This record gives sequence, C-alpha cells and structure tokens, in this order.
Amino acid sequence: MPDDGPTDLTEFELVHPRGITRHLYGRSALIRAQGRLEELLNQRRLFLLSSRPVLELHGQAVLDGLSRVASVPIAEVPDGEAAKRLSVVEQLAERLVRWGVERSSVLVSLGGGSVSDLVGFLAAVLHRGVSWVAFPTTLLAQLDAAVGGKTGVDLDIAKNAVGAFHPPLAVLADADWLPTLPALELRAGFVEAIKTAAVLDASLFAAIEARFDGLLSGDPDELAWLAASVARAKVSLVTEDLEDRGPRALLNFGHTLGHALEAVSGFSVSHGAAVAYGMRFVQHLAIPRGADRSFWARLLSLLDRLGLPEPPVADPRDLLSAIGRDKKVHAGSVRWVIPFRPGEASWTITVPEPELERALSDFLAARGTNAAL
Amino acid sequence: MPDDGPTDLTEFELVHPRGITRHLYGRSALIRAQGRLEELLNQRRLFLLSSRPVLELHGQAVLDGLSRVASVPIAEVPDGEAAKRLSVVEQLAERLVRWGVERSSVLVSLGGGSVSDLVGFLAAVLHRGVSWVAFPTTLLAQLDAAVGGKTGVDLDIAKNAVGAFHPPLAVLADADWLPTLPALELRAGFVEAIKTAAVLDASLFAAIEARFDGLLSGDPDELAWLAASVARAKVSLVTEDLEDRGPRALLNFGHTLGHALEAVSGFSVSHGAAVAYGMRFVQHLAIPRGADRSFWARLLSLLDRLGLPEPPVADPRDLLSAIGRDKKVHAGSVRWVIPFRPGEASWTITVPEPELERALSDFLAARGTNAAL
Repeated sequence: MPDDGPTDLTEFELVHPRGITRHLYGRSALIRAQGRLEELLNQRRLFLLSSRPVLELHGQAVLDGLSRVASVPIAEVPDGEAAKRLSVVEQLAERLVRWGVERSSVLVSLGGGSVSDLVGFLAAVLHRGVSWVAFPTTLLAQLDAAVGGKTGVDLDIAKNAVGAFHPPLAVLADADWLPTLPALELRAGFVEAIKTAAVLDASLFAAIEARFDGLLSGDPDELAWLAASVARAKVSLVTEDLEDRGPRALLNFGHTLGHALEAVSGFSVSHGAAVAYGMRFVQHLAIPRGADRSFWARLLSLLDRLGLPEPPVADPRDLLSAIGRDKKVHAGSVRWVIPFRPGEASWTITVPEPELERALSDFLAARGTNAAL
Repeated sequence: MPDDGPTDLTEFELVHPRGITRHLYGRSALIRAQGRLEELLNQRRLFLLSSRPVLELHGQAVLDGLSRVASVPIAEVPDGEAAKRLSVVEQLAERLVRWGVERSSVLVSLGGGSVSDLVGFLAAVLHRGVSWVAFPTTLLAQLDAAVGGKTGVDLDIAKNAVGAFHPPLAVLADADWLPTLPALELRAGFVEAIKTAAVLDASLFAAIEARFDGLLSGDPDELAWLAASVARAKVSLVTEDLEDRGPRALLNFGHTLGHALEAVSGFSVSHGAAVAYGMRFVQHLAIPRGADRSFWARLLSLLDRLGLPEPPVADPRDLLSAIGRDKKVHAGSVRWVIPFRPGEASWTITVPEPELERALSDFLAARGTNAAL
C-alpha cells in the first residue's frame, strides 16, 4: 500500500450496528489511501456528487484517484445549504436511477458538510439504502459534519429535520484540501473542535490551546492533526450511541441557543458564530452550578481568539420560543449540555424557565463586554 | 384486556434488528386490541395520517379507539399513489414539526398500501426516525404492503425507488374494514396472497384453493383468515431477511415482468393485474426447467378465477428494456423467481437473453387463449 510517505495516514474506525466506517486522515490522503480505497470499493460502481466550486478545485485529482477503481459519472449538486432540500434529493435520485445506480453502487460525496449531509441522506434512501463514502473538503466537515453518520436535509421550519443515521463506508479527509479554504470556514471548524474537546477530552483541549497559533495560521500539518484528533474523539463517543439516544447529546454543547439564534436571524448568522455564541451563553448556567471558573476562562479565551463576528442583537423572547421548537426537545423539556471541567460535561440538565430567562437577560446585557463572568 | 370476544385476535411478531413489530389481526381488531395498543403506545404523542375517503369511512371509529390513549391531531394525505412523492413527505414533515412532533412521537397510518408506504417513510426520516403504527384498511395492505417494514415513495422514473426499511411498532388489521372495499381492491389482495402462498407455503396454497369461493364472495371471516395467514407467512420470511439481500426476493415472484408492464403502460394497469400477468409469464421459464405442471395448472386456474382485466398489448422490446431498469437489477443481471412446486421456489435464476426473448414472444402470442401451457 502506498501509505509509506513522510507522515503516515491516521486510520481509525467507527463500529456501528450495520458495519464499520474507516477513517483515513492526513496530508496527501487521497494519494496515500489509494490502496485502501481500492480494497473498500472493490469493483463497485461509483457516482461522484459534488458542487461546481469544489469540482473546480479538486475534481480532477479526485477523478484521477478514483479512476484506478472505475470510471465515475459526476452529478453536480448546489453549493452550500441550498443543497439540503428534498427537492434536490428527488432530482439527484431521478438522475442516478436513469444512470443505472444499483443497490450495490457507491455514492462519493466531495465537499463540505452540506454536501455530505445531502449525499449521505440520498444514499440512505435511494433504493432503500446504498453505500457511500465521504471526501470532506472543509475543516468543519473533516472533524465534525462528515463524521458520525448523521445525514439529512432541511425543512423551511427547521434545519436537519428530515434525515437518517447512515454512516459511510469510509471518510477520506485529505488535509491538503484545507489551505484553499477562506479563513471564515477554518474558524467554523475551530469552533466545533473547541466544543468537542471541551466536552470530551481534557488532553485534546489542552493540546488545542498549546497549538492554537499554528492552527490560526492555517499550517497544513497542524490542521491535519486537528481534523484527525477531533474526528477520532467524536468517533469514540458515537460508537457508544450512534442514534443519539444518550451521551451523543454532549455534542450539542452550544447548539441549543446556537440553533435558536440561527433560526431567529433567518440563518444570516454563520453556524460557527452561532455555536460559539451558544457556548458562551452556557457559562451563565454552568458557573452557578459550580463549574470550574478557570476552565471557563480558558474556553472563552479560545473563542475570543477566533475573532468571530458579533451576532446581531436578538430578542430574548424570540430566542426562548425558538429553543422550544428545537428538535432536541425531548418529551417536552429542553436538556442543556453543561461542561464543568475540561472533558467533563452533563447532557441531562433541565433548566427552570425563570432561571433560563434571567440567564439569557444577563447574557444579552453583557454582550460585547468582557464583564460576563 | 378486551380481546376475549367470540373469535380471538391473531397475534404474531416480526423480530428485526431494531425491535419487534406486533401484528394484531382479526374481526373487530380495533376494539379488541385496545389494551394491547395502550401498552404499546404508552402515553406517547400520536399523529394520525390518512386520506379523506378513508377518514370518512373509518376516521371516527379510529379516533374513538385512539382517544383512550391521547388526543390525536389528523394530517390528511392525498388518496392513492399520488401520496407517494417526496413533495408530500416535505409538506407533511413541515406540518408535523409545526405541530410539535418529537422523536418520541408515534405516527399512525390509516389507509391502504400507498398511505402506509408514505407514512412509514415519513416516520423513517422525520427527526432521523420516529416510531409508527400501521392500520391497513385494504386487503392488499393487510396481507402485504403494510407488512415487512418496506416503506417508500416514487420517482418519475421508478416506483418505490426512494425509501427505507423501517418496520412499525405494530400492524393493527381489522377485518371489519375490508367489506367496504370495491371488488377490484379485494382481487389485488388475492393476487398477492396467491403469490405469497405459491412461493412460501404449500399448505396455505391448498387452503386458499379450498376456501376460494368464500374468499371471492367477500365473507369477512374468510378475509380475516386470509389476511392473518398470508401476513404471518410473509413475516416468517422477512424475519430472515429484512433488508432484502437474500430470500426475501422470493416475494418478487411475478413482479419482474409485472413492474415492467406497469412502467410500459404508464401505470394504467393495476398492480394486481400486472403481477398476475407476471406470474403467468413465469410458466414459460418454469416448465422448461422441470417445474411441476399440475402445480402450475392449479396456480393459473386460481388466477383465472379472479377474472382480472386483460392488460393492453405491450411491445416485447419495451418490456425487456423496462426489465433492465427494474431496481431489483443486481450487479447487472436480472434474477427471476421461479416456483417449481407449491412452496418451493428459486430466487437466484438468471435467464439467458435469447431464452427470455423467446419466452416473452411465446407468452405474448398466447395471451388471451388457454394454449399457453
């Protein structure tokens, strides 16, 4: 196998009820994982799905890589969140069936989280389930969106409200794709990396702090390390709870208020900025419950260093009612994810309505200042 | 529990990788299974999905039954095959999320096979999977469509090409709903009953023959027996192979050419008539392979007694190319289901192209006469 280059591929597995997802991470992963891909795809028919901007950047290299396996038709998908609609699923399904896609075929997703969410869901429902592999091209997709088997599309009323748990055969994440990203997209990845480390892994959290300068500078070796490390931490958790009925909820840290802010702003706020905002808010629930203040100071400091844009001012009543509609609502109550120390968090806390309203007022009053703690 | 009436409920289970489906069959099943339903649904929020004609016939009785469990909002779905579209899935999902559907909620499908195909699929993808129960109101749905966990919707290019394996919590099949059906709908059920018995169960096949007069007359006790017996036979098979990777293909008997005829006719031929046509054709593959002639004579005689309308004349080239597009195509070859004796069939036979063309010519030439054997 040609994975004997200067740095090795990082490989790890998600074992789930219906099989195994192989993760192949690192610089030049596309070239170096060639042998592993050929084994995994073993003569099956492939269909590549990607958006025009991504195809322009990486399409030829990916086709060259896959062409050792088979000739590969390409279906273009819309760029960004617009891809995640049932109408797009329908158009792509019509096209792929016309092209002869079979239950034994494999869809290949090339792009960011929107593309893998869409293509994974298409794979989940086409002929009642075909296999797929994810080639995530953004940092956010490499360390979060394409990892863990959640796929789905949006409704008008709620994002990701229609979907499936359908882990891919493989996630191939080439870190050499990352330096082409705009800074904003890198920061979206950093937000989820900080979130995952904060709730799951104290040593990863400390390592991110220590290597933060290199990460912010976009050093490809540092980004390669981050993508593999965070994805691996997420995989460990998801192995316990693929279908999100228990501790996987830890990954919703920052997402309860984050989703509400996205909804209230009509999705004009980026997901990364919204989740960072949601994480910051949780300090107002965590500190009164005895969370470690120095950990929270470290966490807030990392978020500060990202220099994310300040979200628009939101009405607390709108945020509270959006929280109530969030799909994580379980049997009528909202459960908050609250980290107390690095890698130690609870995902089962319900917050009384009056406390929530007060905490939100405090948070909104303190926005833009450093007086929040 | 109030299931101690003059005849008992028939109960059986489908055990599948993600749980158990309870089947509750019989006359007055809606009333008599009340206690079982309350146990199964156990305080969960219910949403009833049904079409206007079915709601007019059975809506009030079902609501009365379910209201002992909870108050139940109703979402109306289009009648018939028109329901099975992703655009309908999207509209219903928007409405249910607006109404507060949660991952712990249960969708209740009331109607024929189109409704259960749609609602089961909606349940499979809403919030990445919610539970559902099927109340099938047609014979075809009670003995086939609502049994076995296949759900899905249509594309323009192919029926059921988008879907999921998502068995319901329960199938409640009340035989008292069946006498309201038009004769044509009963016959569609008889076609699938004959098909299932022919490939799975010699004694069921003989029993259907023996009780065929009562069945044709629409006797509710006979229909109750048929629905429960055929569904139970199907469940035994599906338990071995929920995801249709092996012997479940036996249930495709008659469907290879049947689906092709439906496609070629622009779906102007009923599914029952198309499958009966497809079963008749298979004699031309079975007899040359040594199948039992007296069994085939019995099978054809049962189909004759249904008095199904004769499908329009189809061009053999159109049929052959439609067969090639059929989604059961596996790695480039079509596998035919061929019964040799009652309850004994093969599902792995590939037929050489020249033989297939010759058999189809013979079949089409003999249509409308009794000279086929």
